[in-house]
Amino acid sequence: MIKVGIVGGTGYTGVELLRLLAAHPQVELQVITSRADAGMPVSQMFPSLRGYVDLPFTHPDQAHLAQCDLVFFATPNGIAMQQTRALLDAGVKVIDLAADFRIKDIAEWEKWYGMTHACPDLVGEAVYGLPEVNREQIKKARLVANPGCYPTAVQLGFIPLLEAGVIEAGSLIADAKSGVSGAGRKAEIATLFSEAADNFKAYGVPGHRHLPEIRQGLSRVHGKPVGLTFVPHLTPMIRGIHATLYGKLTREVDLQALFEQRYAGEPCVDVMPAGSHPETRSVRGANCCRIAVHRPQGGDTVVVLSVIDNLVKGAAGQAVQNMNIMCGLPESTAINNLPLLP
Amino acid sequence: MIKVGIVGGTGYTGVELLRLLAAHPQVELQVITSRADAGMPVSQMFPSLRGYVDLPFTHPDQAHLAQCDLVFFATPNGIAMQQTRALLDAGVKVIDLAADFRIKDIAEWEKWYGMTHACPDLVGEAVYGLPEVNREQIKKARLVANPGCYPTAVQLGFIPLLEAGVIEAGSLIADAKSGVSGAGRKAEIATLFSEAADNFKAYGVPGHRHLPEIRQGLSRVHGKPVGLTFVPHLTPMIRGIHATLYGKLTREVDLQALFEQRYAGEPCVDVMPAGSHPETRSVRGANCCRIAVHRPQGGDTVVVLSVIDNLVKGAAGQAVQNMNIMCGLPESTAINNLPLLP
Amino acid sequence: MIKVGIVGGTGYTGVELLRLLAAHPQVELQVITSRADAGMPVSQMFPSLRGYVDLPFTHPDQAHLAQCDLVFFATPNGIAMQQTRALLDAGVKVIDLAADFRIKDIAEWEKWYGMTHACPDLVGEAVYGLPEVNREQIKKARLVANPGCYPTAVQLGFIPLLEAGVIEAGSLIADAKSGVSGAGRKAEIATLFSEAADNFKAYGVPGHRHLPEIRQGLSRVHGKPVGLTFVPHLTPMIRGIHATLYGKLTREVDLQALFEQRYAGEPCVDVMPAGSHPETRSVRGANCCRIAVHRPQGGDTVVVLSVIDNLVKGAAGQAVQNMNIMCGLPESTAINNLPLLP
Amino acid sequence: MIKVGIVGGTGYTGVELLRLLAAHPQVELQVITSRADAGMPVSQMFPSLRGYVDLPFTHPDQAHLAQCDLVFFATPNGIAMQQTRALLDAGVKVIDLAADFRIKDIAEWEKWYGMTHACPDLVGEAVYGLPEVNREQIKKARLVANPGCYPTAVQLGFIPLLEAGVIEAGSLIADAKSGVSGAGRKAEIATLFSEAADNFKAYGVPGHRHLPEIRQGLSRVHGKPVGLTFVPHLTPMIRGIHATLYGKLTREVDLQALFEQRYAGEPCVDVMPAGSHPETRSVRGANCCRIAVHRPQGGDTVVVLSVIDNLVKGAAGQAVQNMNIMCGLPESTAINNLPLLP
Repeated sequence: MIKVGIVGGTGYTGVELLRLLAAHPQVELQVITSRADAGMPVSQMFPSLRGYVDLPFTHPDQAHLAQCDLVFFATPNGIAMQQTRALLDAGVKVIDLAADFRIKDIAEWEKWYGMTHACPDLVGEAVYGLPEVNREQIKKARLVANPGCYPTAVQLGFIPLLEAGVIEAGSLIADAKSGVSGAGRKAEIATLFSEAADNFKAYGVPGHRHLPEIRQGLSRVHGKPVGLTFVPHLTPMIRGIHATLYGKLTREVDLQALFEQRYAGEPCVDVMPAGSHPETRSVRGANCCRIAVHRPQGGDTVVVLSVIDNLVKGAAGQAVQNMNIMCGLPESTAINNLPLLP
Repeated sequence: MIKVGIVGGTGYTGVELLRLLAAHPQVELQVITSRADAGMPVSQMFPSLRGYVDLPFTHPDQAHLAQCDLVFFATPNGIAMQQTRALLDAGVKVIDLAADFRIKDIAEWEKWYGMTHACPDLVGEAVYGLPEVNREQIKKARLVANPGCYPTAVQLGFIPLLEAGVIEAGSLIADAKSGVSGAGRKAEIATLFSEAADNFKAYGVPGHRHLPEIRQGLSRVHGKPVGLTFVPHLTPMIRGIHATLYGKLTREVDLQALFEQRYAGEPCVDVMPAGSHPETRSVRGANCCRIAVHRPQGGDTVVVLSVIDNLVKGAAGQAVQNMNIMCGLPESTAINNLPLLP
Repeated sequence: MIKVGIVGGTGYTGVELLRLLAAHPQVELQVITSRADAGMPVSQMFPSLRGYVDLPFTHPDQAHLAQCDLVFFATPNGIAMQQTRALLDAGVKVIDLAADFRIKDIAEWEKWYGMTHACPDLVGEAVYGLPEVNREQIKKARLVANPGCYPTAVQLGFIPLLEAGVIEAGSLIADAKSGVSGAGRKAEIATLFSEAADNFKAYGVPGHRHLPEIRQGLSRVHGKPVGLTFVPHLTPMIRGIHATLYGKLTREVDLQALFEQRYAGEPCVDVMPAGSHPETRSVRGANCCRIAVHRPQGGDTVVVLSVIDNLVKGAAGQAVQNMNIMCGLPESTAINNLPLLP
Repeated sequence: MIKVGIVGGTGYTGVELLRLLAAHPQVELQVITSRADAGMPVSQMFPSLRGYVDLPFTHPDQAHLAQCDLVFFATPNGIAMQQTRALLDAGVKVIDLAADFRIKDIAEWEKWYGMTHACPDLVGEAVYGLPEVNREQIKKARLVANPGCYPTAVQLGFIPLLEAGVIEAGSLIADAKSGVSGAGRKAEIATLFSEAADNFKAYGVPGHRHLPEIRQGLSRVHGKPVGLTFVPHLTPMIRGIHATLYGKLTREVDLQALFEQRYAGEPCVDVMPAGSHPETRSVRGANCCRIAVHRPQGGDTVVVLSVIDNLVKGAAGQAVQNMNIMCGLPESTAINNLPLLP
């Protein structure tokens, strides 16, 4: 049994980790921390966990995280980088679901996140936890930077095209739409039901923190810098990301075969039949990215449709996938549940 | 392994049965019928099942249901009663998720459902599949009438009070609210998104088919006829029923203890702590009924709040629970997954 | 032209007042206050008002409210009672959309609202602004207490029955459902989209602040205290209240005629044809209460269905209706716009 | 007074026309046709119109449309082209809200709409009713082809850039998102609440009927054919279109000034301040297109955000705007109501 701790258990990625880990046959949940709600039973805040999670929230100072085998950080940005070194030194594996270890260029990270990084050397060690790209490194990693939600959906959609070198890498466009849970469980007016329901809007068009993360990932695949326009939108649903990706073809290629071959054998990526339009609900609650590729009107623009559940393949599910890989377990353990539809 | 067939697999109860049964370790799905969509892979209609269900829909005439151990009817009312006798004669167990076998009074059934019953004698044999009331009979049943969604939520909320004889049974009120999936997967204007979203309404106030079913169940518990006003409402969510139940107390009683004792040991009923307000999302996707009991302002009106997922404890989940009981399996097999929240 | 000021313009009742008053031909908007957002153009916070409202928010200290003819308070409870006396002394009429002047029993008010009342004598003078009951007093009023949203829907539904003396007044039940905007434009977790969407729950069952207000109104109509159980629920829509009301008939009566006669000539109450089920969207954005009355299965329980838009007839629209009456204008001025459907 | 008839009054554009025309001071509604619901009072189907529209639906054969001054067709594609010549011959002006007269290239129209056109010569006469482009021709028109919803949002966003010749016209991308009412009030499974809620998907990526309409409009502005990739999506809200438009800049230009100058004086287009993100709810129920223009990260990709209410500026509101222009009325009559927010 793997002894697991969760730092920051009161947000949506936290409760989603709990949902998945509570059903994981190889995991023993040791501790879940919350500074503000220490002492409260977890199932009081989240009645959906009644009967499955009996722990109370523990104050971080009493958490004894060093006794865990692996610790997840489901915290705001800037927390994990304060505590990771001590945990690694104590032999604990760490998966950070926030952004602290995602961007290799420290100056770039500090610009977008507005703080000084506490441990630049660990950024160098950290493995970016996209199993479809970095599975081998994840196996050996002590520290995994779990990808952001938009970056997961966008990278999985562009990677086959960039690896094959069949699109102009200088003018990629990612038009992405997210459910509201992506904004987290924070008391804010903009994500109130009465503000976000029956409404659709773009946000962060001048610049969004996931832009450098996506650009870094795609540039690594491409071998040199890519040009990317990334426009995120808020759509009135709870879970789900739909990325609509545009690229200009530079040579003829069988797009359907390209995608199917790239993801053959991948347990968490599903290339849909030609002509498909994946729906976000087809992955609701599941650790799956479904992708379809189109070439409208036979022109030279390729359109990729990529959907995930932002809280699962875009956060907690991918974190459990990474844990399974790091710990030598079957990769799909506890993340092979069926989507909830309708 | 239990060989299972599903008649009518294209509705919401059908796809929900598939979701649950595909993960059931003791079930081998043999056949799923659909007259209109015979030949189409199930996972083409429901991409959420890609990778889990490989069967196509089979035309009813080619279904060979008699080779199954157990058949679920997820059909409109009036279908199961045509086919059940032949299946029983062939040694097949039957669970009907529609209403054909729920009402013991044939004349009453024919009045509410507007057709002549095809096999009144089997109605007599059929066991009403509410395990919290009829578990012992279900164990021995060949034919189970799976309860309706509203009847499940309302009966589980009133039963402790009626069994204890602490409320006036002549003036019960059940104000119930259902998500839109309760209306089924049928092409109808009234349940279009643009009609049902951002809207709330009552319907069927003069009379709803679940009224006689609830009245029958409560009257059996009470030992004589009860008086019930039942008002269903449509609320803009996909899944969930919230029943708000009102009764007049006839004597002092510890309501919280009464409910906790009644449902102690029940795997699929959760009595919440005193003062709770159960939310429908706390049971989303789960085979669970959560109940809270209140006595507002210390008056003589008792208010019971009872929530279920109409497609799970209100339909497919309860059907699997009944199957487990009928087949001697652990009762919670494949229906103990965690609710999806948020 | 009537010079109008609004105190507290950043909440939902504030912006709804602006929507209605900006189109009022007899109103000149003088000032809208906001302590936190002073200086910001109103149309920057609410782009829907671009081109219609050119004012910025003004700090309360610079608002010169005494120069208005009439001031609306769209503030949290406890603000209007601090400022009303000075305004009345300066000859300004006041309409409070909060609860400061609604409850005549000061001790009762202080119990439910948890503060000491600043001007009990003005509570005595204030007229409860339900035009269908108090139109004549409103005409002469200096100070109007605008009713709550639930109280409007519930009282309008019960009043014909209580005035006619045809139901047991000791055991009234009001099961009410509200859209989320009723909770206001406040940064709170419980009303986030991801918490309130696709979910239904009761709240405040042990006691809700609108209970004493409804009880006071119904008791006045009845001539002596009534017994009322009031259960509010949160439903995933933005606007709308649906009250389902239950009473026990004490004698035979033509219910449809009773309701039609009571509200004949009322411009803002619509008694629907017998057998109707009013939908909240049928009054979306409109200052209208639609009512239907039923007697299910011919029993002795009467069921009244009453719908309003909580922000219009339940708040800002009713406030404008009261202003029109107080100022001698045609009662429907600027509040006779058509509902938005779908 | 203008005598107005509506052919096909039971869909969403029909009921929206009724909402707007019922409040139009210069319009006398003469007749509303419906083959299926002839005889039913309009306000029985749409209770929101109770008290505003007293007409019943009339069978087309009894409609006497030739006695109207102007007739709106709110019918499925292919109906207006059967009846328009007779009306024009009788001196009746016609506005078709469907697609019969939008595409000048008859062969192209017949390819996309799958039928033979009944009156190609009238297509030549018809004026495309986008007032921001064709106001002068609309003034003199007998027959107006009211634009589609997507085409309105997309064209208004691209026009300033194409007129100024500052973007590559060969690789335009329009990523558009629509509320579900755009699919009409038809009984279909795909637009049921339980299918479309809490879900997001693209559709029609290989080809959508609005593609040739947009391409025609933009090509006319550009002076030669443009290249356009158009990807529509379905988003879980009732009303609203959000078009996100991408183009490659070919020279330096002050984008904000360009848009502000192009639409200066336009009553129904609002260019938002630099840096804005227009929300669909900011135009809910209003005949307004709000636009913002961005140049993310200072690159050479321009991003335009354009929002409308698909039923108003995208259909019925624009039709009334066209009627006002055709009839010499102030252009904003009856379409200057404020948006409903929240």
